[in-house]
Amino acid sequence: MMPRVFWDNPVQVGETVVVSGDDGHHFARVLRAKVGEQLSVAAAGLGYLAVVRGVDAAAGSVELEVTRQLDARDPFNKIYLIQALAKADKVDGIVQRCTEVGVAGVLVYESARSVVRLTSSKRSARVARWNKVAKEAAIQCQRDTIPLVDHASTFAAVYTWLEDHGPCQVLLLDEAERAQTLRTWLQATYAPITEEMATIVVVGPEGGWTDDERRAWSTVKAQSITLGPRILRTETAGVVAIAAVLYEYGDLGG
Amino acid sequence: MMPRVFWDNPVQVGETVVVSGDDGHHFARVLRAKVGEQLSVAAAGLGYLAVVRGVDAAAGSVELEVTRQLDARDPFNKIYLIQALAKADKVDGIVQRCTEVGVAGVLVYESARSVVRLTSSKRSARVARWNKVAKEAAIQCQRDTIPLVDHASTFAAVYTWLEDHGPCQVLLLDEAERAQTLRTWLQATYAPITEEMATIVVVGPEGGWTDDERRAWSTVKAQSITLGPRILRTETAGVVAIAAVLYEYGDLGG
Repeated sequence: MMPRVFWDNPVQVGETVVVSGDDGHHFARVLRAKVGEQLSVAAAGLGYLAVVRGVDAAAGSVELEVTRQLDARDPFNKIYLIQALAKADKVDGIVQRCTEVGVAGVLVYESARSVVRLTSSKRSARVARWNKVAKEAAIQCQRDTIPLVDHASTFAAVYTWLEDHGPCQVLLLDEAERAQTLRTWLQATYAPITEEMATIVVVGPEGGWTDDERRAWSTVKAQSITLGPRILRTETAGVVAIAAVLYEYGDLGG
Repeated sequence: MMPRVFWDNPVQVGETVVVSGDDGHHFARVLRAKVGEQLSVAAAGLGYLAVVRGVDAAAGSVELEVTRQLDARDPFNKIYLIQALAKADKVDGIVQRCTEVGVAGVLVYESARSVVRLTSSKRSARVARWNKVAKEAAIQCQRDTIPLVDHASTFAAVYTWLEDHGPCQVLLLDEAERAQTLRTWLQATYAPITEEMATIVVVGPEGGWTDDERRAWSTVKAQSITLGPRILRTETAGVVAIAAVLYEYGDLGG
Protein backbone atom coordinates (compact mmCIF):
# COMPACT_ATOMS: atom_id res chain seq x y z
CA MET A 1 0.00 0.00 0.00
CA MET A 2 1.41 3.35 -1.04
CA PRO A 3 1.54 5.89 1.79
CA ARG A 4 -0.81 8.84 1.31
CA VAL A 5 -0.60 12.31 2.82
CA PHE A 6 -3.54 14.73 3.00
CA TRP A 7 -3.47 18.50 2.56
CA ASP A 8 -6.16 21.11 2.74
CA ASN A 9 -4.40 23.38 0.21
CA PRO A 10 -4.33 22.70 -3.53
CA VAL A 11 -1.08 21.74 -5.26
CA GLN A 12 0.09 21.82 -8.88
CA VAL A 13 1.90 19.13 -10.85
CA GLY A 14 5.59 20.11 -10.85
CA GLU A 15 5.32 21.91 -7.50
CA THR A 16 7.69 21.05 -4.66
CA VAL A 17 6.24 20.97 -1.16
CA VAL A 18 7.70 20.34 2.29
CA VAL A 19 5.79 18.03 4.64
CA SER A 20 6.47 18.72 8.31
CA GLY A 21 4.46 18.26 11.51
CA ASP A 22 2.94 14.85 12.30
CA ASP A 23 2.93 13.72 8.66
CA GLY A 24 6.55 14.83 8.15
CA HIS A 25 7.58 12.95 11.29
CA HIS A 26 5.66 9.88 10.10
CA PHE A 27 7.32 9.81 6.67
CA ALA A 28 10.83 10.88 7.72
CA ARG A 29 11.20 8.89 10.93
CA VAL A 30 8.57 6.13 11.10
CA LEU A 31 8.38 5.04 7.45
CA ARG A 32 12.00 6.25 6.82
CA ALA A 33 11.22 7.64 3.38
CA LYS A 34 14.13 7.64 0.94
CA VAL A 35 14.94 10.06 -1.87
CA GLY A 36 13.41 8.79 -5.11
CA GLU A 37 10.55 6.88 -3.42
CA GLN A 38 6.99 7.47 -4.57
CA LEU A 39 4.05 8.33 -2.40
CA SER A 40 0.62 9.74 -3.02
CA VAL A 41 -0.80 13.07 -2.00
CA ALA A 42 -4.43 14.12 -1.66
CA ALA A 43 -4.67 17.90 -1.79
CA ALA A 44 -7.94 19.82 -1.72
CA GLY A 45 -9.79 16.64 -2.67
CA LEU A 46 -7.61 15.62 -5.64
CA GLY A 47 -5.10 12.77 -5.74
CA TYR A 48 -1.52 13.07 -7.01
CA LEU A 49 1.60 10.98 -7.32
CA ALA A 50 4.71 12.53 -5.77
CA VAL A 51 8.36 11.60 -5.44
CA VAL A 52 10.58 12.19 -2.40
CA ARG A 53 13.29 14.77 -3.23
CA GLY A 54 14.74 15.27 0.25
CA VAL A 55 14.47 13.84 3.77
CA ASP A 56 15.43 15.68 6.98
CA ALA A 57 15.16 12.99 9.66
CA ALA A 58 16.38 15.31 12.43
CA ALA A 59 13.72 17.94 11.69
CA GLY A 60 11.09 15.32 10.80
CA SER A 61 10.27 16.64 7.34
CA VAL A 62 10.32 15.47 3.75
CA GLU A 63 10.43 17.41 0.49
CA LEU A 64 8.15 16.12 -2.27
CA GLU A 65 7.77 16.91 -5.93
CA VAL A 66 4.22 16.47 -7.24
CA THR A 67 4.61 14.51 -10.50
CA ARG A 68 1.17 13.52 -11.79
CA GLN A 69 -2.53 13.84 -11.05
CA LEU A 70 -4.33 10.54 -10.33
CA ASP A 71 -7.86 9.48 -11.25
CA ALA A 72 -10.49 10.45 -8.70
CA ARG A 73 -11.03 7.89 -5.95
CA ASP A 74 -13.99 9.49 -4.22
CA PRO A 75 -17.59 8.92 -5.34
CA PHE A 76 -19.08 11.56 -7.63
CA ASN A 77 -22.24 11.57 -5.50
CA LYS A 78 -22.10 12.73 -1.92
CA ILE A 79 -23.64 10.18 0.45
CA TYR A 80 -23.62 11.13 4.14
CA LEU A 81 -24.46 8.99 7.15
CA ILE A 82 -26.37 10.15 10.20
CA GLN A 83 -25.74 7.39 12.74
CA ALA A 84 -27.45 7.03 16.10
CA LEU A 85 -24.84 6.86 18.84
CA ALA A 86 -23.91 3.32 19.88
CA LYS A 87 -21.08 1.92 21.98
CA ALA A 88 -17.73 3.48 21.07
CA ASP A 89 -16.15 0.50 19.33
CA LYS A 90 -19.28 -0.03 17.24
CA VAL A 91 -19.10 3.57 16.01
CA ASP A 92 -15.38 3.05 15.24
CA GLY A 93 -16.25 0.12 12.97
CA ILE A 94 -19.11 2.03 11.35
CA VAL A 95 -16.88 5.02 10.57
CA GLN A 96 -14.15 2.73 9.25
CA ARG A 97 -16.37 0.66 6.94
CA CYS A 98 -18.41 3.62 5.69
CA THR A 99 -15.22 5.59 4.93
CA GLU A 100 -13.92 2.67 2.87
CA VAL A 101 -17.10 2.30 0.88
CA GLY A 102 -17.16 6.04 0.20
CA VAL A 103 -19.20 8.05 2.71
CA ALA A 104 -18.78 11.83 2.35
CA GLY A 105 -19.20 12.56 6.06
CA VAL A 106 -20.77 11.21 9.24
CA LEU A 107 -22.95 12.80 11.91
CA VAL A 108 -23.21 10.79 15.13
CA TYR A 109 -26.56 11.64 16.70
CA GLU A 110 -27.57 10.96 20.31
CA SER A 111 -31.01 9.54 19.68
CA ALA A 112 -33.67 8.93 22.33
CA ARG A 113 -32.95 5.20 22.54
CA SER A 114 -29.16 5.36 22.19
CA VAL A 115 -27.87 3.22 25.05
CA VAL A 116 -24.80 5.45 25.40
CA ARG A 117 -24.71 9.08 26.50
CA LEU A 118 -21.64 11.26 26.09
CA THR A 119 -20.73 13.74 28.79
CA SER A 120 -19.39 16.98 27.33
CA SER A 121 -15.94 16.12 28.67
CA LYS A 122 -15.91 12.79 26.85
CA ARG A 123 -17.49 14.12 23.71
CA SER A 124 -14.54 15.93 22.17
CA ALA A 125 -12.20 12.99 22.83
CA ARG A 126 -14.66 10.63 21.20
CA VAL A 127 -15.17 12.88 18.17
CA ALA A 128 -11.38 13.22 17.80
CA ARG A 129 -11.05 9.43 17.92
CA TRP A 130 -13.74 8.89 15.26
CA ASN A 131 -12.00 11.43 13.01
CA LYS A 132 -8.72 9.58 13.51
CA VAL A 133 -10.43 6.32 12.49
CA ALA A 134 -11.81 8.08 9.38
CA LYS A 135 -8.36 9.41 8.47
CA GLU A 136 -6.69 6.01 8.85
CA ALA A 137 -9.43 4.36 6.76
CA ALA A 138 -9.13 7.09 4.09
CA ILE A 139 -5.38 6.46 3.86
CA GLN A 140 -5.90 2.69 3.75
CA CYS A 141 -8.42 2.84 0.90
CA GLN A 142 -6.57 5.72 -0.84
CA ARG A 143 -9.44 8.19 -0.80
CA ASP A 144 -9.02 11.78 -1.93
CA THR A 145 -10.82 13.26 1.07
CA ILE A 146 -11.16 12.37 4.73
CA PRO A 147 -14.83 12.25 5.74
CA LEU A 148 -15.49 14.62 8.62
CA VAL A 149 -17.19 13.06 11.65
CA ASP A 150 -19.44 15.45 13.59
CA HIS A 151 -21.62 15.01 16.63
CA ALA A 152 -25.13 16.20 17.54
CA SER A 153 -26.81 15.78 20.89
CA THR A 154 -30.09 17.48 19.93
CA PHE A 155 -32.34 17.45 16.89
CA ALA A 156 -31.74 21.21 16.57
CA ALA A 157 -28.05 20.41 15.98
CA VAL A 158 -29.03 17.80 13.38
CA TYR A 159 -31.15 20.43 11.67
CA THR A 160 -28.23 22.88 11.54
CA TRP A 161 -25.95 20.16 10.17
CA LEU A 162 -28.50 19.35 7.45
CA GLU A 163 -28.79 23.03 6.50
CA ASP A 164 -25.00 23.20 6.21
CA HIS A 165 -25.09 20.32 3.73
CA GLY A 166 -27.37 22.01 1.22
CA PRO A 167 -30.07 20.36 -0.92
CA CYS A 168 -30.41 16.69 -0.13
CA GLN A 169 -32.67 13.66 0.02
CA VAL A 170 -32.92 12.26 3.57
CA LEU A 171 -33.48 8.49 3.75
CA LEU A 172 -34.60 7.36 7.19
CA LEU A 173 -34.01 3.63 7.64
CA ASP A 174 -36.92 2.46 9.75
CA GLU A 175 -37.89 -1.13 10.50
CA ALA A 176 -41.50 0.06 10.96
CA GLU A 177 -41.60 1.02 7.26
CA ARG A 178 -43.15 -1.72 5.15
CA ALA A 179 -43.82 -0.22 1.72
CA GLN A 180 -41.06 2.11 0.49
CA THR A 181 -37.90 0.18 -0.37
CA LEU A 182 -34.56 1.78 -1.14
CA ARG A 183 -34.66 0.51 -4.72
CA THR A 184 -38.13 1.74 -5.57
CA TRP A 185 -37.34 5.11 -3.97
CA LEU A 186 -34.01 5.64 -5.75
CA GLN A 187 -35.27 4.40 -9.09
CA ALA A 188 -38.44 6.50 -8.88
CA THR A 189 -36.68 9.71 -7.90
CA TYR A 190 -33.37 9.33 -9.63
CA ALA A 191 -32.50 12.13 -11.99
CA PRO A 192 -28.95 13.03 -13.03
CA ILE A 193 -27.71 14.18 -9.65
CA THR A 194 -25.43 17.18 -9.47
CA GLU A 195 -22.53 17.40 -7.08
CA GLU A 196 -24.58 19.82 -5.02
CA MET A 197 -27.35 17.29 -4.29
CA ALA A 198 -26.49 15.03 -1.37
CA THR A 199 -28.07 11.83 -0.10
CA ILE A 200 -28.29 11.41 3.67
CA VAL A 201 -28.74 7.88 5.04
CA VAL A 202 -30.10 7.92 8.61
CA VAL A 203 -29.57 4.86 10.85
CA GLY A 204 -31.38 4.50 14.18
CA PRO A 205 -30.25 2.98 17.45
CA GLU A 206 -30.66 -0.66 18.50
CA GLY A 207 -34.04 0.10 20.08
CA GLY A 208 -35.36 1.86 16.96
CA TRP A 209 -36.89 5.32 16.56
CA THR A 210 -39.45 6.88 18.90
CA ASP A 211 -42.60 8.42 17.44
CA ASP A 212 -41.33 11.86 18.49
CA GLU A 213 -38.19 11.26 16.47
CA ARG A 214 -40.21 10.10 13.46
CA ARG A 215 -42.15 13.36 13.66
CA ALA A 216 -38.92 15.36 13.91
CA TRP A 217 -37.48 13.59 10.87
CA SER A 218 -40.66 14.25 8.92
CA THR A 219 -40.13 18.01 9.44
CA VAL A 220 -36.97 17.72 7.32
CA LYS A 221 -38.89 15.71 4.68
CA ALA A 222 -37.10 12.47 5.54
CA GLN A 223 -38.42 9.50 3.57
CA SER A 224 -38.89 6.31 5.60
CA ILE A 225 -37.17 3.39 3.88
CA THR A 226 -37.08 -0.36 4.52
CA LEU A 227 -34.08 -2.51 3.66
CA GLY A 228 -36.30 -5.59 3.72
CA PRO A 229 -37.42 -8.24 6.18
CA ARG A 230 -34.04 -9.04 7.74
CA ILE A 231 -33.34 -6.84 10.74
CA LEU A 232 -29.87 -5.35 10.32
CA ARG A 233 -27.93 -4.28 13.39
CA THR A 234 -27.23 -0.55 13.73
CA GLU A 235 -23.57 -1.22 12.86
CA THR A 236 -24.44 -3.04 9.61
CA ALA A 237 -27.36 -0.98 8.26
CA GLY A 238 -25.37 2.11 7.24
CA VAL A 239 -22.69 0.42 5.16
CA VAL A 240 -25.32 -1.76 3.45
CA ALA A 241 -27.51 1.22 2.55
CA ILE A 242 -24.57 3.37 1.42
CA ALA A 243 -23.22 0.50 -0.71
CA ALA A 244 -26.64 0.14 -2.35
CA VAL A 245 -26.97 3.90 -3.02
CA LEU A 246 -23.45 4.08 -4.49
CA TYR A 247 -24.22 0.99 -6.58
CA GLU A 248 -27.44 2.54 -7.91
CA TYR A 249 -25.69 5.81 -8.78
CA GLY A 250 -22.79 4.09 -10.56
CA ASP A 251 -20.29 4.97 -7.86
CA LEU A 252 -18.96 1.46 -7.13
CA GLY A 253 -16.74 1.59 -10.18
CA GLY A 254 -19.52 2.66 -12.58
CA MET B 1 -36.59 -9.09 19.71
CA MET B 2 -38.72 -12.19 19.56
CA PRO B 3 -36.77 -15.39 20.29
CA ARG B 4 -36.48 -17.73 17.32
CA VAL B 5 -35.83 -21.46 17.28
CA PHE B 6 -34.56 -23.37 14.25
CA TRP B 7 -35.57 -26.87 13.13
CA ASP B 8 -34.48 -29.00 10.24
CA ASN B 9 -37.84 -30.75 10.00
CA PRO B 10 -40.95 -29.15 8.52
CA VAL B 11 -43.90 -28.26 10.77
CA GLN B 12 -47.59 -27.57 10.10
CA VAL B 13 -49.76 -24.75 11.43
CA GLY B 14 -51.74 -26.21 14.34
CA GLU B 15 -49.07 -28.78 15.18
CA THR B 16 -47.69 -29.03 18.73
CA VAL B 17 -43.96 -29.67 19.10
CA VAL B 18 -41.66 -30.18 22.08
CA VAL B 19 -38.34 -28.30 22.09
CA SER B 20 -35.68 -30.02 24.18
CA GLY B 21 -31.87 -30.14 24.06
CA ASP B 22 -29.90 -26.85 23.99
CA ASP B 23 -32.82 -24.83 22.60
CA GLY B 24 -35.22 -26.27 25.16
CA HIS B 25 -32.80 -25.45 27.96
CA HIS B 26 -32.37 -21.92 26.56
CA PHE B 27 -36.12 -21.24 26.43
CA ALA B 28 -37.15 -23.02 29.62
CA ARG B 29 -34.28 -22.00 31.92
CA VAL B 30 -32.40 -19.03 30.44
CA LEU B 31 -35.25 -17.02 28.90
CA ARG B 32 -37.77 -18.54 31.39
CA ALA B 33 -40.53 -18.86 28.81
CA LYS B 34 -44.07 -18.64 30.16
CA VAL B 35 -47.25 -20.32 28.97
CA GLY B 36 -49.02 -18.04 26.51
CA GLU B 37 -45.87 -16.25 25.33
CA GLN B 38 -45.14 -16.01 21.60
CA LEU B 39 -41.96 -16.96 19.88
CA SER B 40 -41.01 -17.65 16.31
CA VAL B 41 -39.93 -20.89 14.72
CA ALA B 42 -37.98 -21.45 11.51
CA ALA B 43 -38.56 -24.99 10.28
CA ALA B 44 -37.15 -26.35 7.04
CA GLY B 45 -36.54 -22.77 5.85
CA LEU B 46 -40.00 -21.37 6.60
CA GLY B 47 -40.91 -19.00 9.44
CA TYR B 48 -43.83 -19.49 11.83
CA LEU B 49 -45.32 -17.86 14.86
CA ALA B 50 -45.80 -20.19 17.84
CA VAL B 51 -47.22 -19.92 21.35
CA VAL B 52 -45.84 -21.60 24.46
CA ARG B 53 -48.30 -24.23 25.74
CA GLY B 54 -46.15 -25.82 28.42
CA VAL B 55 -42.79 -25.36 30.17
CA ASP B 56 -40.82 -28.06 31.98
CA ALA B 57 -37.99 -26.16 33.66
CA ALA B 58 -36.61 -29.26 35.37
CA ALA B 59 -36.31 -31.19 32.11
CA GLY B 60 -35.34 -28.07 30.13
CA SER B 61 -38.08 -28.34 27.52
CA VAL B 62 -40.99 -26.28 26.22
CA GLU B 63 -44.11 -27.30 24.33
CA LEU B 64 -45.10 -25.03 21.45
CA GLU B 65 -48.18 -24.77 19.28
CA VAL B 66 -47.46 -23.49 15.76
CA THR B 67 -50.11 -20.83 15.11
CA ARG B 68 -49.34 -19.05 11.83
CA GLN B 69 -46.89 -19.00 8.93
CA LEU B 70 -44.85 -15.78 8.57
CA ASP B 71 -43.69 -14.01 5.40
CA ALA B 72 -40.33 -15.22 4.09
CA ARG B 73 -37.33 -13.43 5.56
CA ASP B 74 -34.61 -14.94 3.41
CA PRO B 75 -33.67 -13.56 -0.01
CA PHE B 76 -35.27 -15.24 -3.02
CA ASN B 77 -31.89 -15.33 -4.74
CA LYS B 78 -29.09 -17.41 -3.28
CA ILE B 79 -25.89 -15.37 -2.84
CA TYR B 80 -22.93 -17.25 -1.38
CA LEU B 81 -19.60 -15.87 -0.15
CA ILE B 82 -16.21 -17.49 -0.68
CA GLN B 83 -13.96 -15.61 1.74
CA ALA B 84 -10.19 -15.88 1.91
CA LEU B 85 -9.16 -16.85 5.42
CA ALA B 86 -8.20 -13.88 7.61
CA LYS B 87 -7.64 -13.55 11.35
CA ALA B 88 -10.32 -15.29 13.40
CA ASP B 89 -12.14 -12.21 14.72
CA LYS B 90 -12.26 -10.70 11.23
CA VAL B 91 -13.95 -13.84 9.88
CA ASP B 92 -16.38 -13.71 12.81
CA GLY B 93 -17.43 -10.19 11.80
CA ILE B 94 -17.67 -11.15 8.13
CA VAL B 95 -19.91 -14.14 8.89
CA GLN B 96 -22.05 -12.02 11.21
CA ARG B 97 -22.59 -9.11 8.81
CA CYS B 98 -23.07 -11.30 5.73
CA THR B 99 -25.62 -13.45 7.58
CA GLU B 100 -27.59 -10.32 8.51
CA VAL B 101 -27.62 -8.96 4.98
CA GLY B 102 -28.74 -12.34 3.64
CA VAL B 103 -25.88 -14.60 2.54
CA ALA B 104 -26.99 -18.18 1.73
CA GLY B 105 -23.73 -19.78 2.89
CA VAL B 106 -20.03 -19.09 3.35
CA LEU B 107 -16.91 -20.99 2.31
CA VAL B 108 -13.74 -19.87 4.09
CA TYR B 109 -10.84 -20.59 1.74
CA GLU B 110 -7.15 -20.72 2.71
CA SER B 111 -5.73 -18.68 -0.13
CA ALA B 112 -2.03 -18.39 -1.03
CA ARG B 113 -1.65 -15.01 0.67
CA SER B 114 -3.89 -15.65 3.68
CA VAL B 115 -1.78 -14.55 6.65
CA VAL B 116 -3.37 -17.22 8.83
CA ARG B 117 -3.04 -21.00 8.46
CA LEU B 118 -5.28 -23.43 10.31
CA THR B 119 -3.82 -26.63 11.66
CA SER B 120 -6.22 -29.53 11.28
CA SER B 121 -6.67 -29.62 15.06
CA LYS B 122 -7.74 -25.96 15.13
CA ARG B 123 -9.83 -26.16 12.02
CA SER B 124 -12.89 -27.95 13.34
CA ALA B 125 -13.06 -25.68 16.40
CA ARG B 126 -12.84 -22.62 14.17
CA VAL B 127 -15.52 -23.88 11.76
CA ALA B 128 -17.78 -24.69 14.73
CA ARG B 129 -17.28 -21.16 16.05
CA TRP B 130 -18.10 -19.53 12.70
CA ASN B 131 -21.27 -21.62 12.47
CA LYS B 132 -22.22 -20.49 15.98
CA VAL B 133 -21.73 -16.86 14.91
CA ALA B 134 -23.93 -17.51 11.85
CA LYS B 135 -26.66 -19.06 14.02
CA GLU B 136 -26.66 -16.17 16.49
CA ALA B 137 -26.79 -13.63 13.65
CA ALA B 138 -29.62 -15.58 11.97
CA ILE B 139 -31.62 -15.49 15.22
CA GLN B 140 -30.88 -11.79 15.70
CA CYS B 141 -32.04 -10.80 12.22
CA GLN B 142 -34.90 -13.35 12.25
CA ARG B 143 -33.82 -15.30 9.19
CA ASP B 144 -35.54 -18.47 8.09
CA THR B 145 -32.31 -20.40 7.55
CA ILE B 146 -28.88 -20.46 9.16
CA PRO B 147 -26.16 -20.05 6.53
CA LEU B 148 -23.75 -22.99 6.66
CA VAL B 149 -20.08 -22.03 7.01
CA ASP B 150 -17.66 -24.49 5.37
CA HIS B 151 -13.89 -24.53 5.04
CA ALA B 152 -11.55 -25.37 2.15
CA SER B 153 -7.77 -25.59 2.36
CA THR B 154 -7.22 -26.44 -1.32
CA PHE B 155 -8.66 -25.28 -4.60
CA ALA B 156 -9.82 -28.84 -5.22
CA ALA B 157 -12.04 -28.52 -2.15
CA VAL B 158 -13.36 -25.19 -3.49
CA TYR B 159 -14.15 -26.92 -6.77
CA THR B 160 -16.10 -29.67 -4.98
CA TRP B 161 -18.00 -27.07 -2.95
CA LEU B 162 -18.91 -25.21 -6.16
CA GLU B 163 -20.13 -28.41 -7.80
CA ASP B 164 -22.32 -29.07 -4.75
CA HIS B 165 -23.93 -25.65 -5.21
CA GLY B 166 -25.15 -26.25 -8.75
CA PRO B 167 -25.38 -23.72 -11.58
CA CYS B 168 -23.97 -20.38 -10.56
CA GLN B 169 -22.24 -17.18 -11.62
CA VAL B 170 -18.89 -16.75 -9.83
CA LEU B 171 -17.87 -13.12 -9.24
CA LEU B 172 -14.19 -12.77 -8.32
CA LEU B 173 -13.55 -9.43 -6.63
CA ASP B 174 -10.11 -8.41 -7.83
CA GLU B 175 -8.43 -5.05 -7.38
CA ALA B 176 -6.41 -5.74 -10.55
CA GLU B 177 -9.65 -5.68 -12.58
CA ARG B 178 -10.25 -2.26 -14.13
CA ALA B 179 -13.05 -2.69 -16.66
CA GLN B 180 -15.83 -5.01 -15.49
CA THR B 181 -17.86 -3.44 -12.71
CA LEU B 182 -20.45 -5.28 -10.62
CA ARG B 183 -23.24 -3.11 -12.02
CA THR B 184 -22.40 -3.53 -15.69
CA TRP B 185 -21.97 -7.29 -15.16
CA LEU B 186 -25.23 -7.82 -13.28
CA GLN B 187 -27.25 -5.57 -15.56
CA ALA B 188 -25.79 -7.14 -18.71
CA THR B 189 -26.31 -10.73 -17.61
CA TYR B 190 -29.39 -10.44 -15.47
CA ALA B 191 -32.26 -12.58 -16.55
CA PRO B 192 -35.08 -13.69 -14.25
CA ILE B 193 -33.00 -15.89 -12.00
CA THR B 194 -34.48 -19.13 -10.76
CA GLU B 195 -33.99 -20.42 -7.25
CA GLU B 196 -31.55 -22.97 -8.68
CA MET B 197 -29.14 -20.32 -10.04
CA ALA B 198 -26.75 -19.07 -7.36
CA THR B 199 -24.37 -16.11 -7.28
CA ILE B 200 -20.99 -16.68 -5.63
CA VAL B 201 -19.06 -13.60 -4.46
CA VAL B 202 -15.34 -14.38 -3.99
CA VAL B 203 -13.25 -12.12 -1.72
CA GLY B 204 -9.45 -12.36 -1.63
CA PRO B 205 -7.00 -11.96 1.23
CA GLU B 206 -5.35 -8.71 2.29
CA GLY B 207 -2.44 -9.32 -0.06
CA GLY B 208 -4.67 -10.00 -3.07
CA TRP B 209 -4.78 -12.97 -5.45
CA THR B 210 -1.74 -14.65 -6.96
CA ASP B 211 -1.63 -15.26 -10.72
CA ASP B 212 -1.90 -19.00 -10.07
CA GLU B 213 -5.11 -18.38 -8.15
CA ARG B 214 -6.48 -16.18 -10.93
CA ARG B 215 -5.84 -19.05 -13.35
CA ALA B 216 -7.54 -21.51 -11.00
CA TRP B 217 -10.60 -19.24 -10.72
CA SER B 218 -10.74 -18.88 -14.48
CA THR B 219 -11.14 -22.67 -14.77
CA VAL B 220 -14.48 -22.31 -12.98
CA LYS B 221 -15.46 -19.41 -15.29
CA ALA B 222 -15.13 -16.84 -12.52
CA GLN B 223 -15.69 -13.28 -13.77
CA SER B 224 -13.23 -10.69 -12.41
CA ILE B 225 -15.11 -7.73 -10.98
CA THR B 226 -14.04 -4.33 -9.62
CA LEU B 227 -15.96 -2.52 -6.89
CA GLY B 228 -14.33 0.75 -7.96
CA PRO B 229 -11.26 2.79 -7.09
CA ARG B 230 -11.51 2.63 -3.31
CA ILE B 231 -9.65 -0.35 -1.92
CA LEU B 232 -11.98 -2.20 0.44
CA ARG B 233 -10.51 -4.33 3.22
CA THR B 234 -11.16 -8.07 3.00
CA GLU B 235 -13.64 -7.77 5.90
CA THR B 236 -15.68 -5.05 4.14
CA ALA B 237 -15.68 -6.20 0.50
CA GLY B 238 -18.02 -9.20 0.93
CA VAL B 239 -20.88 -7.44 2.69
CA VAL B 240 -20.68 -4.52 0.25
CA ALA B 241 -20.78 -6.79 -2.81
CA ILE B 242 -23.55 -8.98 -1.39
CA ALA B 243 -25.60 -5.90 -0.47
CA ALA B 244 -25.23 -4.60 -4.03
CA VAL B 245 -26.20 -7.95 -5.61
CA LEU B 246 -29.25 -8.27 -3.33
CA TYR B 247 -30.17 -4.67 -4.13
CA GLU B 248 -29.93 -5.29 -7.88
CA TYR B 249 -32.02 -8.46 -7.66
CA GLY B 250 -34.73 -6.80 -5.56
CA ASP B 251 -33.85 -8.73 -2.42
CA LEU B 252 -33.36 -5.77 -0.03
CA GLY B 253 -37.09 -5.44 0.42
CA GLY B 254 -37.88 -5.44 -3.33
